[in-house]
Amino acid sequence: MALKDEYYAVIEAGGTKFNCAIVNSNREILEDIRIPTTTPEETLSACVSFFKAQREAGYAFSKMGIGSFGPLDLDENSKTFGYVTKTPKPHWTFAAVSPYFEKALDCEVVIDTDVNAAALAEARWGAAQGTSVSVYITVGTGVGGGVVVNGKPLHGLVHPEIGHMTVIPPEGMEGVCPFHKNCVEGLASGRSLGKIWGQPSETLPDDHEAWDKLTDVLAQLCHNLLVGFSAQRIVFGGGVMQKTGMIEHIVAKTEKSLNGYIVYPEGVTLEDIIVLPGLGTHSGMLGALALLDQ
Amino acid sequence: MALKDEYYAVIEAGGTKFNCAIVNSNREILEDIRIPTTTPEETLSACVSFFKAQREAGYAFSKMGIGSFGPLDLDENSKTFGYVTKTPKPHWTFAAVSPYFEKALDCEVVIDTDVNAAALAEARWGAAQGTSVSVYITVGTGVGGGVVVNGKPLHGLVHPEIGHMTVIPPEGMEGVCPFHKNCVEGLASGRSLGKIWGQPSETLPDDHEAWDKLTDVLAQLCHNLLVGFSAQRIVFGGGVMQKTGMIEHIVAKTEKSLNGYIVYPEGVTLEDIIVLPGLGTHSGMLGALALLDQ
Repeated sequence: MALKDEYYAVIEAGGTKFNCAIVNSNREILEDIRIPTTTPEETLSACVSFFKAQREAGYAFSKMGIGSFGPLDLDENSKTFGYVTKTPKPHWTFAAVSPYFEKALDCEVVIDTDVNAAALAEARWGAAQGTSVSVYITVGTGVGGGVVVNGKPLHGLVHPEIGHMTVIPPEGMEGVCPFHKNCVEGLASGRSLGKIWGQPSETLPDDHEAWDKLTDVLAQLCHNLLVGFSAQRIVFGGGVMQKTGMIEHIVAKTEKSLNGYIVYPEGVTLEDIIVLPGLGTHSGMLGALALLDQ
Repeated sequence: MALKDEYYAVIEAGGTKFNCAIVNSNREILEDIRIPTTTPEETLSACVSFFKAQREAGYAFSKMGIGSFGPLDLDENSKTFGYVTKTPKPHWTFAAVSPYFEKALDCEVVIDTDVNAAALAEARWGAAQGTSVSVYITVGTGVGGGVVVNGKPLHGLVHPEIGHMTVIPPEGMEGVCPFHKNCVEGLASGRSLGKIWGQPSETLPDDHEAWDKLTDVLAQLCHNLLVGFSAQRIVFGGGVMQKTGMIEHIVAKTEKSLNGYIVYPEGVTLEDIIVLPGLGTHSGMLGALALLDQ
C-alpha cells in the first residue's frame, strides 16, 4: 500500500515508554505523547485515550503502524498474531498489542519489531536508501537489530534477534545476558555495561576502557553481519551510539577483522557501509509509518 | 521464468571439479561429466566441448545455470558481472565464467554461488520447502553458506560468505584461516581439520575429539543463524556432514546454546529446523537448474 491517507497513527512501543503520534504522509509529526510502559492495561488504554482525542480533534486516521519491543508473534496464521510473546518484562508476556488497538480504535494495524520498523524507515527514507540488504542496530539499554531484504522486513521463524548473536568476548570480559554467556547484548548494552563496570553506563568517562571494548564487540558483530548477510548498509542507532567517535572506531576495527577478505564494489568503502541513522532519532517513529507503506 | 524448455545445461563449478550436465525440466540428469578444475582456459573449454557434443546429440538447450565457487561478481551493472573475483585459487582471479559460456555456446546464463544455488534448490524442491528464510551450509573441504529469502538467493553487497563468520573457538583450539583468526572455515572445514589435527580429516577416527569440537563450532554457527536470520531451516550438506550422528549433536548443542531464548512456533522443534539435505548430494547440481526457475 502507498501512503494515500492524510493522517496516520503510529506507535514506537518501547520497554520504558510508548511514543504515540499522529503523522501525515509527508512524515511530519503533528501531535505526539510519551506514555510510560507499566502494565498492558494501563499503557495500552492510555494510548487509546490519546488517539481517540486526536480523532475528535479532527485527525481522522484509519491505519496504525506499531514498531514494538519483542519478542512478537508475527505469524499471520497464529492465534496470538500481534502479541508480545514470552518476555522477561513483567506483565507483558502474551500481551495482545495489535488486536487491542484494532478493536479499541477500529483501525487496521500493522505491527513489527521496533528494529525491523526502524530498518525499514532507514531503507525507505534514510541512510540505507537504494540498498537491497540492510541492517539497523540499536545500542541503548538493550541491543537489537532489524533487517530489510528487498524492501521487506525479515521475519522467518520469528524475527531477527541480532542482539543475541554470540561473539568472542574481549579479554578479561564475560557477558551478563541471563540466557547466553557471550552474546552482543550481554556485553554491549547500556544495561550490561552498568553491570560489568559497576556504574551506570552514562557515568563512564570518555577515556574508560569500557568504550574501547564496546567497539571491539560491535566490530565483531559488523564482521558477522557483513559476511553473513552481505549487508550493504549497517545503520547504528540508539543512545550509546551518540557518543563521539564510536562509529569511526567500529569501522576501523571491522576493517581489521575482515582483513581484506571482502572485495567491496568499486568506489565503496566501509565508511559508506557502517553509518549513523539518516533519520536521526526518528527512525523508530517513522519506522512505524513505513510499516504502512510496504 | 518457469522451466518450460525441454533441456537445460547446468554446471556445479567447484574448486576441484566442474560437474556439467544436461537436465530436463523434471530435474532428471540425462548426461553428465566431471571436468577437473585446472586453469580457466582448460576447464572452461572442456566444458564447452561437452555441451557442444550434447547439442549435436540432440539436446537442444538455450539456457545454462551455473552454481560456482566464489567470490563472484553478481552485480549486473558491473563490468565484471559473472566473473570470479579475487580468489586465493591460482589462475582463477577475475576469470570470466558466465560471459565465456554465453559467448561460446550462444545461450542465456544465470550464475550464482554454489551455495546460494544449493540453498535455492533445497528451498524449491528439498528440505526447506515452504520456508521464507532458509540457509544451506556445506561442510566439506571448505565451509560455505547460501541464503534464500522469499524465494530469492541473497546478494546484497556481494553474496554471503557464511564460512567466514567468527565464532568462539573451542578450548585449546585456534582457527587456521589465512584471513581470520577464528572463523568457522578456519576451525571446521575438512582442510582446517587436517591442519589442526595433523592428519587428513578423513583419517580421523570416529572417537577423535576433533568431531566433538567440530559440532561445537557448527552449533555456534547455527545459534547465530537462528538469532541473526531467524532461519526456518538450516540445511547441512557437504562430505563432512555425512558422518553418522553429526546433525544430532549439532541440534543438541544449538538447543543448549540458545538456552530457551527463542520460542519456536507451535509444534516446531529444532530437529525440524537443522536438517540434512532433502536432495541428497544433488542440491548443487539441481541448484544450478533452480537458478533458471526464479
